[in-house]
Amino acid sequence: MSTLFKNLRIHQIFGSNTDVGKTILTTALVKASVTKNIPVFYLKPVSTGPPEDADDGHIKRYTKPGLVHTDCLFRYDEPVSPHLAAKMKAAGGARPEIPSDQTVVNSIANRIRQYAARSQKYAHAYMETAGGVHSPSLSGTTQADCYRPLFLPTVLIGDSRLGGISSTISSYESLILRGYIIDAVLLFRDDYYSNWEYLEPYFAEKGIRLSAIDPPPTRLPDPATDRLCVQKYYNDLTTDSTSTGINAITDHLDQCHTKRLDELASMPRRTFNTIWWPFVQHGLVKTEEDVTVIDSAHSDFFSVYRSQDQTGGAQSPATSLLAPEFDGSASWWTQTVGHAHPSLTLAAARASGRYGHVMFPQATHLPALNLAESLVHNGPGKGWASRAFFTDNGSTGMEVALKMALRAYTSRNNVTESDKKRLGVIGLNGSYHGDTIGAMDACAEGVYSCEWHDAKGFWFDPPSIGIIDSKPSITLTPALHSLVGEQVLPAPSLSWIYDIQSRLRTPLARVYQDYIREQLEKLEERGQKFGALVLEPLLMGAGGMIFVDPLFQRVMVDVARSRKNEKDTPPAWSGIPVIFDEVFVGLHRIGMESTGPLLGTYPDISVNAKILTGGLVPLAVTLASESIFEVFLGDNKATALLHGHSYTAHALGCEVANETLKLIDSLKTTPGWQAAQASWSDDVSSPCQVWSFWDPGFVQAVSNLPHVASAMALGSVFAIRLKSGSDSGYVSMSAQAMFEPLKRLIPSANELSAAPSGAPYTTHYRTLGDVAYFMTSLNTQPAVVRSIEDKIWGVLQSP
Amino acid sequence: MSTLFKNLRIHQIFGSNTDVGKTILTTALVKASVTKNIPVFYLKPVSTGPPEDADDGHIKRYTKPGLVHTDCLFRYDEPVSPHLAAKMKAAGGARPEIPSDQTVVNSIANRIRQYAARSQKYAHAYMETAGGVHSPSLSGTTQADCYRPLFLPTVLIGDSRLGGISSTISSYESLILRGYIIDAVLLFRDDYYSNWEYLEPYFAEKGIRLSAIDPPPTRLPDPATDRLCVQKYYNDLTTDSTSTGINAITDHLDQCHTKRLDELASMPRRTFNTIWWPFVQHGLVKTEEDVTVIDSAHSDFFSVYRSQDQTGGAQSPATSLLAPEFDGSASWWTQTVGHAHPSLTLAAARASGRYGHVMFPQATHLPALNLAESLVHNGPGKGWASRAFFTDNGSTGMEVALKMALRAYTSRNNVTESDKKRLGVIGLNGSYHGDTIGAMDACAEGVYSCEWHDAKGFWFDPPSIGIIDSKPSITLTPALHSLVGEQVLPAPSLSWIYDIQSRLRTPLARVYQDYIREQLEKLEERGQKFGALVLEPLLMGAGGMIFVDPLFQRVMVDVARSRKNEKDTPPAWSGIPVIFDEVFVGLHRIGMESTGPLLGTYPDISVNAKILTGGLVPLAVTLASESIFEVFLGDNKATALLHGHSYTAHALGCEVANETLKLIDSLKTTPGWQAAQASWSDDVSSPCQVWSFWDPGFVQAVSNLPHVASAMALGSVFAIRLKSGSDSGYVSMSAQAMFEPLKRLIPSANELSAAPSGAPYTTHYRTLGDVAYFMTSLNTQPAVVRSIEDKIWGVLQSP
Repeated sequence: MSTLFKNLRIHQIFGSNTDVGKTILTTALVKASVTKNIPVFYLKPVSTGPPEDADDGHIKRYTKPGLVHTDCLFRYDEPVSPHLAAKMKAAGGARPEIPSDQTVVNSIANRIRQYAARSQKYAHAYMETAGGVHSPSLSGTTQADCYRPLFLPTVLIGDSRLGGISSTISSYESLILRGYIIDAVLLFRDDYYSNWEYLEPYFAEKGIRLSAIDPPPTRLPDPATDRLCVQKYYNDLTTDSTSTGINAITDHLDQCHTKRLDELASMPRRTFNTIWWPFVQHGLVKTEEDVTVIDSAHSDFFSVYRSQDQTGGAQSPATSLLAPEFDGSASWWTQTVGHAHPSLTLAAARASGRYGHVMFPQATHLPALNLAESLVHNGPGKGWASRAFFTDNGSTGMEVALKMALRAYTSRNNVTESDKKRLGVIGLNGSYHGDTIGAMDACAEGVYSCEWHDAKGFWFDPPSIGIIDSKPSITLTPALHSLVGEQVLPAPSLSWIYDIQSRLRTPLARVYQDYIREQLEKLEERGQKFGALVLEPLLMGAGGMIFVDPLFQRVMVDVARSRKNEKDTPPAWSGIPVIFDEVFVGLHRIGMESTGPLLGTYPDISVNAKILTGGLVPLAVTLASESIFEVFLGDNKATALLHGHSYTAHALGCEVANETLKLIDSLKTTPGWQAAQASWSDDVSSPCQVWSFWDPGFVQAVSNLPHVASAMALGSVFAIRLKSGSDSGYVSMSAQAMFEPLKRLIPSANELSAAPSGAPYTTHYRTLGDVAYFMTSLNTQPAVVRSIEDKIWGVLQSP
Repeated sequence: MSTLFKNLRIHQIFGSNTDVGKTILTTALVKASVTKNIPVFYLKPVSTGPPEDADDGHIKRYTKPGLVHTDCLFRYDEPVSPHLAAKMKAAGGARPEIPSDQTVVNSIANRIRQYAARSQKYAHAYMETAGGVHSPSLSGTTQADCYRPLFLPTVLIGDSRLGGISSTISSYESLILRGYIIDAVLLFRDDYYSNWEYLEPYFAEKGIRLSAIDPPPTRLPDPATDRLCVQKYYNDLTTDSTSTGINAITDHLDQCHTKRLDELASMPRRTFNTIWWPFVQHGLVKTEEDVTVIDSAHSDFFSVYRSQDQTGGAQSPATSLLAPEFDGSASWWTQTVGHAHPSLTLAAARASGRYGHVMFPQATHLPALNLAESLVHNGPGKGWASRAFFTDNGSTGMEVALKMALRAYTSRNNVTESDKKRLGVIGLNGSYHGDTIGAMDACAEGVYSCEWHDAKGFWFDPPSIGIIDSKPSITLTPALHSLVGEQVLPAPSLSWIYDIQSRLRTPLARVYQDYIREQLEKLEERGQKFGALVLEPLLMGAGGMIFVDPLFQRVMVDVARSRKNEKDTPPAWSGIPVIFDEVFVGLHRIGMESTGPLLGTYPDISVNAKILTGGLVPLAVTLASESIFEVFLGDNKATALLHGHSYTAHALGCEVANETLKLIDSLKTTPGWQAAQASWSDDVSSPCQVWSFWDPGFVQAVSNLPHVASAMALGSVFAIRLKSGSDSGYVSMSAQAMFEPLKRLIPSANELSAAPSGAPYTTHYRTLGDVAYFMTSLNTQPAVVRSIEDKIWGVLQSP
């Protein structure tokens, strides 16, 4: 919802408390603008108290009409906090509905767009909030949070009274916690407490301009004299030409506005000059418009910069240079409760303030300990894990998992030193476990490669799941096809497919088992040793959003567990150690917390990351069973698991993870989550194990389209596989070409003002070869999901 | 300085503004304790205003002497903010020195220890602060920061007036930004504004108990009647037995105290049950006392838990269960400006509030862009780098560096697919580049190992630098020894050793060059190809704090650059690409920002991490020259650098890094930094290139001790190499055994109260085989460094 116009410089005015002079100083700003012949829009979103005392009334009283336009969007007579005023009015039946935050924010955004449209050349706007930064808005959300989607540059009015240093700094910090840009602090020059003398260098050190403005005259009993006196006060202020006067501040705010516009415009070029992006062929990024400049983000949306060329150029200065873009890949599959969630910010701040980072070997602290216990006892480790090993990302978490498994294997088998280096993993083609070379070596040779990549193991081609022409189907690979006789096996329902216990009794299970066993035996006969089974359960992400037939993976685990070990120690694990890479699928990304219960079997080692920190900072955890841990126990330091990173179990990440787990728990009982589950349970007889935030009817309809090979959704993930062109695979651009309009669709100014519920938005999306996928957070509004479905549908309809 | 006593439950009382009823509600708490026959200590650290109005006077007036003891430590008559009162008094000459934060904190800590010593069975204590949370203390630091080292559990007094919801929440957030534990929020029950009705569920959701307490009666004109009336008010409060009354709150605070004690006591056991530590042989960690329980951290100190057994058991309940411990390894070489620095916390909060995390491929945002520009143009990349590639830690940063170098090499040479996998690096024995398998493969086989580790390349034994028997010396390896004829070459000074330009003209340079060249030629004749030169310049950390002769490294670079390539494209780099792993040494850890200027040569690729984020969160950057970047340019996605992590260039980490660079810049001009540089420049004729925060005389004295092989310091690092016992190398425990007393030294209660400058502290330290090393932050107080030197000296003297 964040907007930015070349021709309209707007600031929101926050007070560090009530009665600190917010309206007077705003009036001074308005008058300073008028003095320079700049038209001013003054907006009071919510006003409480008698109309004759209202702030917009004050503005009108002391400014001549013409250059100044005032607005008040929601007005209540009771002189109390807006949330109480709204409640009282609702109770009285006068305005039975309390306006939601979204209603308030959309009203403001629409009004701001109108201001921009009405600014011929250049105008100023001020939005004056009510009370202090955290005074509740109409719905009860505090203002600092309620107005955050607008992300307006801010002027903070400081408190010049006794105690005002504290309230000014605390208010500033509350604004910083929401990421606001603070361009200036203004307060009255009180010569006894001299708060400004303390605060001026305090804010200067933070790069923020503070000005102390003379306080208004004492109120006089005679209204007419009082008014003259106040008028003189304002006139004196606006004729002040010193560098700390209100005119200088207005100039400063103009400079801030210009600097921000220039900075945004410069970012693509500067990025081209300095940044080396991950996974990007820079040679294919041709123009500055191809760079997504993210000015801020909130909930599921980026606020992205559109250059004037993109928005229509000089013809339409009234088009916002910032536009919302749906974060269609949940920022590389990490977002959980949306961007900039205040609870996660506070959790990060709490841990940073208590610990900073403290080293972890042989030490302990509450954030890490609590997180380990949650994950092991009540999270994805429930029922099998006993230990948590922390690292920084999925790739390092997988390297640790591999080190654990390979050592466990060699502890039970006679392996020569040179064979150790060639110990293989059993996996699936299309798997991906990260980009560090050890994690790459657990995957087949392929496009994710580098000079040192040396694939170690064997990878089965997996049968996959998808909805094809409306029907849930299992697609077999050529090898299995030849054994079964059919390539595509339609299934009665998705629930049927994911009901592993029942399917273990089907003939297909036996086919899978025999096939896997024979393949392994052949390889073992040739001398290949396998030290680990490594799976991304149910869904292989980076390999192309492949929904694997879970029965095949379950049978793989069973076969791996049936392998014999050479040394006859009684193992708590059987056969080959099993690793589940749940970095992507875990923690409810695809609905369930972890995949063990669905598969009916648990791993010996698993890895979580991504959602673990709610989409804020890097952190990964490798969980292990006690019997894996015991392999490393001894009295020699050299046999320990010698792996660690400087920031292992950093307190900030662990505390954010703890908060994330708490937030996810509370999401499970929300109407959005439950409705999503219910919408998919038509499909099943038993309680639905598999479900999605995406509409089942929509997924089915997409699967029916002529150019769609299959569609599939689980949890927050929706994937469309297009029928292949000639250049299929990872480097294919077909899906990218098809969905490019989603990213290019720039709403026109008309569309913007006509939109009933805020600004229309473009959609950031990601493709993997022939596959396009879309991903929500775990709390994306159902209305937003429906609208993304509409957009996708629209694109798929066009030629 | 943080203290915790079994027999003393203490809370600090913070107000969300002045005049919110802090003293009245504190008095109510005091009286509630007294009602239960629990002795109470009331402490007002700083009081301003006439003595007859002082808060401790109010407490005395309304409580019977005997059970209640009141104290005021710093008293000023002027009714203004403490910082102004102190300034006025200082100006008047009455108390010419304004007490420092440390003086104030130490006075409070000493007083609290006295309270604990005087508590026979169990007592309560309340420390009442002045004004709001951020009201300035005597020095001008705001209270929330000034009192932070004490880390006292907190009761926040909310504001019941109009605007009070905002000031209460903002104050709460300012406390959270300092990591404080908030046990309760109290405020007056105002029935018109009903702030408590809003705030009660608000804080309940955060797990914080809020109680609304009846407000006091209106002040009466007759003092005697007024006093009776107030007395009755307090009596009514303390006979209230409801679950929200002041008695219930006192019980709740007791429970919080007990819960905290129990939690701390449980942490070692719970850690043993769930955590798998990095780099730790769990089998060697025998008792709960071997676990460092870190309750909080501040500046250079952990606050660690000592069980009652450790502190002397039941005999001395007055010994604090929390004791300061110097973070002697700078938390695995990460700490820069000390733990929990408020500027870093605010930077983290600011980025989290503005962006959360936003995906990076083909995108840009200010924190990442600004950081990249600082590093490339004004930081370690100055003069040679043009690109920044972000990852999560030093190990992944090095994997990226290797991928860059190997690809660059193969772009100029004919390498078969199978040779690619065996392309070698040229390095040094003792090097370490991280624990992911690719980074391990760039190091020789050794103790940091795992099944898949497959060392690729050749590692020279390096000549090393150290102070031996007071003399700066170069110690040659056997191979070089045989060429030169001597093993230890004394040097006139350290500056002489590090003056590479001059030494390049010495015969030793020629010896090095011929030796390195011949070795490489021999290897190349056998078919070995080298794709990268990989160095930790000047100091190899994890390999055993080996200070490498910089001349040898410089010559290695020159020789590598002189190698011929097979394809005749004009290269911007020559010979073999050069990687500097500055993860540990970079960004002033060893004094200089980067090592290129000292070595007189720049790398093609370098890696920074650790200090990069000031010691808060994981982040790494790989810098590269434009010609390396160009190798990956093309029109095929498959030839891009296909490496990335979900949280690549996460905004929080980048913003913290930007703040860190800013803080480091401001440190360079501080007296501590400049005095350190000056103390080492006796040693040099030209401006000192090498210097240390450690005292040169101390380092020299240590090098003279009979059981010390050598000592050496650079920047914040000080290392002692002990003369080897029989079991040398990484697994040796000799240094650990020698320095164990530093960690075990528990100060007695007597020592504690006698200490003139706060509590004595133990020292956390780390060893690597025969080497013990100690590390400061970049802003550790010189007095602290001197005291650590004294402790080390003491340990080295004992048998």
